Amino acid sequence: MDDPQIPEDPVAELITNYNELNSCIIEDLDEEPSPLEFMRFVARNTPFVVRGAAADWQATRTWNVEFLKDFLQDESVNVAVTPKGNADSPTVFTDSEGNTTLVFAKPHEEDQPFSTFLDYLIKQEHQLQPTRPQQEEEEVRYAQTQNDNLRHEYLALFSHVQRTIPFARIALDREPDAINLWIGNSRSVTALHKDNYENIYVQVTGQKHFVLLPPVCQPCVNEQMLRPARYERSSSPSSGNGTNTNTDGRLELVVEDEKAERVPFATWDPDLPRENQTRYSKLAEPMRVTLNPGDMLYLPCMWYHKVSQSCSPEGVCIAVNYWYDMDFSGPLYPLSTFVRSVSNREI
Amino acid sequence: MDDPQIPEDPVAELITNYNELNSCIIEDLDEEPSPLEFMRFVARNTPFVVRGAAADWQATRTWNVEFLKDFLQDESVNVAVTPKGNADSPTVFTDSEGNTTLVFAKPHEEDQPFSTFLDYLIKQEHQLQPTRPQQEEEEVRYAQTQNDNLRHEYLALFSHVQRTIPFARIALDREPDAINLWIGNSRSVTALHKDNYENIYVQVTGQKHFVLLPPVCQPCVNEQMLRPARYERSSSPSSGNGTNTNTDGRLELVVEDEKAERVPFATWDPDLPRENQTRYSKLAEPMRVTLNPGDMLYLPCMWYHKVSQSCSPEGVCIAVNYWYDMDFSGPLYPLSTFVRSVSNREI
Ligand SMILES: O=C(O)CCC(=O)C(=O)O
Ligand SMILES: O=C(O)CCC(=O)C(=O)O
Repeated sequence: MDDPQIPEDPVAELITNYNELNSCIIEDLDEEPSPLEFMRFVARNTPFVVRGAAADWQATRTWNVEFLKDFLQDESVNVAVTPKGNADSPTVFTDSEGNTTLVFAKPHEEDQPFSTFLDYLIKQEHQLQPTRPQQEEEEVRYAQTQNDNLRHEYLALFSHVQRTIPFARIALDREPDAINLWIGNSRSVTALHKDNYENIYVQVTGQKHFVLLPPVCQPCVNEQMLRPARYERSSSPSSGNGTNTNTDGRLELVVEDEKAERVPFATWDPDLPRENQTRYSKLAEPMRVTLNPGDMLYLPCMWYHKVSQSCSPEGVCIAVNYWYDMDFSGPLYPLSTFVRSVSNREI
Repeated sequence: MDDPQIPEDPVAELITNYNELNSCIIEDLDEEPSPLEFMRFVARNTPFVVRGAAADWQATRTWNVEFLKDFLQDESVNVAVTPKGNADSPTVFTDSEGNTTLVFAKPHEEDQPFSTFLDYLIKQEHQLQPTRPQQEEEEVRYAQTQNDNLRHEYLALFSHVQRTIPFARIALDREPDAINLWIGNSRSVTALHKDNYENIYVQVTGQKHFVLLPPVCQPCVNEQMLRPARYERSSSPSSGNGTNTNTDGRLELVVEDEKAERVPFATWDPDLPRENQTRYSKLAEPMRVTLNPGDMLYLPCMWYHKVSQSCSPEGVCIAVNYWYDMDFSGPLYPLSTFVRSVSNREI
């Protein structure tokens, strides 16, 4: 087509135009932005990182294994359990006849005494060191409830972090909707997904490695409607004693009923770019950023993010994030839906 | 199609979603916003009006016909001349064989002594009153150069307005790219169009009536690639004296060369909704606002606006606007291009 108003492929043009107008290198700020400076990033729906912004938080200064075990002792905490660190991930399911389908795997959830959970993370992490044999069959545990757990389950720790992020509270004129604590080790990976929140993510211990894609890259991520499934712990020889600390049974992936609502989820992994790609995936220019203890990331609403982790020398990775409700008014939300609608017809 | 991820008509869904999430009634502020409050409107790409914000500006207090004629006297000013008040408008052109095409009509531009120009506006306006017969054949004049004329041609008047709009300068962290003065009467109408600027529009005398559509309404406005044309004053019996104040010749629309670049321009008029409509036009919910002397409008970048005017009792309409460069980074600009690309294929 010759008319410059009608490009051959509007979706490709969208991603290319976006890439031309925006850097895929994250902006590094020396100090927290003012509310107005922050609002400029919100307006551009563009991430930034503030190195060391939380370096002097009590959490960053004091949370180590000894302190946390002392502090929380045997308090019961909710743990997501998966065989491979794939909580909330697209996962291949093999049925009894050997047929495979991609499903959305939710973790098995289990209450465990905090110290048992933490010891498990550390022991597993240290086994991962090159000198030790890797135990592929071991299950992976991650405290990742995302239900405002730092103001509920972990309330005892809440006073060690800020109650809100002042520049975000003032700019967005609201308090955080949820404050979440994340405790895991390097075996857990959070699969590429997006949230309808403005997210301020603070690293406390260890490192998080983010791979980020802007909302316009929806056509790259190969979103599919996946059947939901959940890991369940099957009863095992050593179990059956009726307590909720049975952690010996094998994990089995159970697909939910055919009638269960399907979950729209990204199936492309920017770190395995040739698998599950769409014809637009190669146009994506992922932004990568690693957070060290005390670093703070602004992850704008609707950005895709894949998150993996490295542990502190002690063998844990801990972070806290603040979710502020996004603004659904204005053009961005309906335009993002539009991109999805158009690209789902093209792909 | 049954999949909720693939709507029948993504363009219709876009406009409907936008309308559901946004009001078509403009927000009325009592006082100028702070820079942060302003930035929230910029982030949402959403207009507002501040009633009386410029009520105490020297311009608003002192600019009347006597004052302006005294002040500018016979200084030469650039005037856009058209037969029907249709400067920069889609206009039907009839060629010598009687064939008609829609062209983009640029005005004849002419230098005139300021007092001559103003007298003409006033006289014409008063003839328009119901008791006098309407003279359809009279030409329409509008000072509307949009080339930062208040800091050049009309520099003498510049100190009567603010040099910048403080909340916008601080929020956007830049000075205005252009400050424009608009002087006309009720015969001029600015056709529906959009600009890549953040616009602060201030009414000084008379009224302006804005009809506004957000960028997502691109599919409603029936944008077409129009051949450019320009009004030219043909030599007339009383002309030929070589001065540049010949205003007697008739105006003739001259279409530019076939090779001249075509102008993409909206051809739908929200006030004549059944003419030139697209299949999406009926989904548009135009926002309407009238500015009175001293009122200030924030017109976000890329919003379509049609502007008509009513005069002060003296018979003129005067306004000043501040154009701040928009931010092309972030998702809005490429997404707006995407909407155009997709809808140009659908229509
Ligand atoms: O830290 C993680 O594993 C994931 C974080 C995340 O998805 C979020 O903060 O929204
Ligand atoms: O006042 C007018 O006639 C048009 C104003 C306009 O188009 C603008 O300010 O961009």
